[in-house]
Amino acid sequence: MSQLLRVQNFNVSSDGVAAGADQSLQSPFGLPGAQALWSWAGATASWPNRTDPGGTRGLDDYFTRDFTHNIGAEIMGRNKFGPQRGPWENHEWRGWWGDEPPFHTPVFVMTHHPRPSFTLSDTTFHFVAGDPADVLEQAKAAAQGKDVRLGGGVTTVREFLDADLVDTLHIAVSPVEFGTGLRLWESPQELLDRFHLEVVPSPSGVTHHLFWRK
Amino acid sequence: MSQLLRVQNFNVSSDGVAAGADQSLQSPFGLPGAQALWSWAGATASWPNRTDPGGTRGLDDYFTRDFTHNIGAEIMGRNKFGPQRGPWENHEWRGWWGDEPPFHTPVFVMTHHPRPSFTLSDTTFHFVAGDPADVLEQAKAAAQGKDVRLGGGVTTVREFLDADLVDTLHIAVSPVEFGTGLRLWESPQELLDRFHLEVVPSPSGVTHHLFWRK
Repeated sequence: MSQLLRVQNFNVSSDGVAAGADQSLQSPFGLPGAQALWSWAGATASWPNRTDPGGTRGLDDYFTRDFTHNIGAEIMGRNKFGPQRGPWENHEWRGWWGDEPPFHTPVFVMTHHPRPSFTLSDTTFHFVAGDPADVLEQAKAAAQGKDVRLGGGVTTVREFLDADLVDTLHIAVSPVEFGTGLRLWESPQELLDRFHLEVVPSPSGVTHHLFWRK
Repeated sequence: MSQLLRVQNFNVSSDGVAAGADQSLQSPFGLPGAQALWSWAGATASWPNRTDPGGTRGLDDYFTRDFTHNIGAEIMGRNKFGPQRGPWENHEWRGWWGDEPPFHTPVFVMTHHPRPSFTLSDTTFHFVAGDPADVLEQAKAAAQGKDVRLGGGVTTVREFLDADLVDTLHIAVSPVEFGTGLRLWESPQELLDRFHLEVVPSPSGVTHHLFWRK
């Protein structure tokens, strides 16, 4: 089986918004109320940060659980990694995720500003320049036969879609509307020239959108 | 996290039938037309026996893919292992699955007739007597912290349900009716005293039933 580039558990509003323009240390998504986009995942038994027992084991849990399944590397944009822009002032910032990042694989952060790789627990962050095809090639080599997850943010997902490098997408659409912000799409119909689509409503109110290449 | 006993990708008809009474070498499920119960899984990209490219990557594929996820051992009844009854006449029969069984873990076959363990590829079959709780204890030890899959057949699943040892079930209900046969249930409502239930229809026509303990 060939290695896929997969978007997994990527959250957007009913009007396609995934983030806001005003990202900051206090507001990683730059979008007031953004937590409404991923509350469905936090309610599941398999949510990685769950410390109390319980949690649902229905459909949403299947998607939460699949986040790491057969994934050997992640690609993310610099804006997912942190709020800084331009050259690195120092190397103190090591991501939003603390000492135990939820990736457990090599992570390739796309940036034109070089920085040494570093490791936190079983996640190693590499900082790579290059176009999407170059970065994907590096990530596939690091994934050792497993699939590569395209982690976002939304600008990075669009960049890889424009380069036609994405094989499958799982997009969770939440029943909340933002009006403004950075959009994945105006409508999921935009992808139907290249992808099959299955739309699966969940009892949580989220609608899971599953795309795979024609 | 504690180890769960999970029923995964277990197939029944709309009237709850999972197998027939007349199992034989030619008819492993003892039920004419039984292939209608699992054709949804065979259509998915992740179906283990798929040799041609393609296949769906929608909801059904998530369930096919989850079959092996975090599973460290399987428990099955002797009637899932083979059509023989009573004492083993010889040890030539090594299951229906050829040299590469799809389990990839230890498998505990419940039988009162002893037989030595044997290994095919990365699957080792053990033959164990004892009640469900005893067998589950052995399987959990072998699973080394991962979950245990309860593989069936239907009589074995019912036996573990009666002993209240099952933590989660994924039952795929196909839009076909058999009228007679071995039933998992008269109705899924029977389990609602002990389990939550989410019912998720798939575009393939199968209705996925997800149960987890209250």
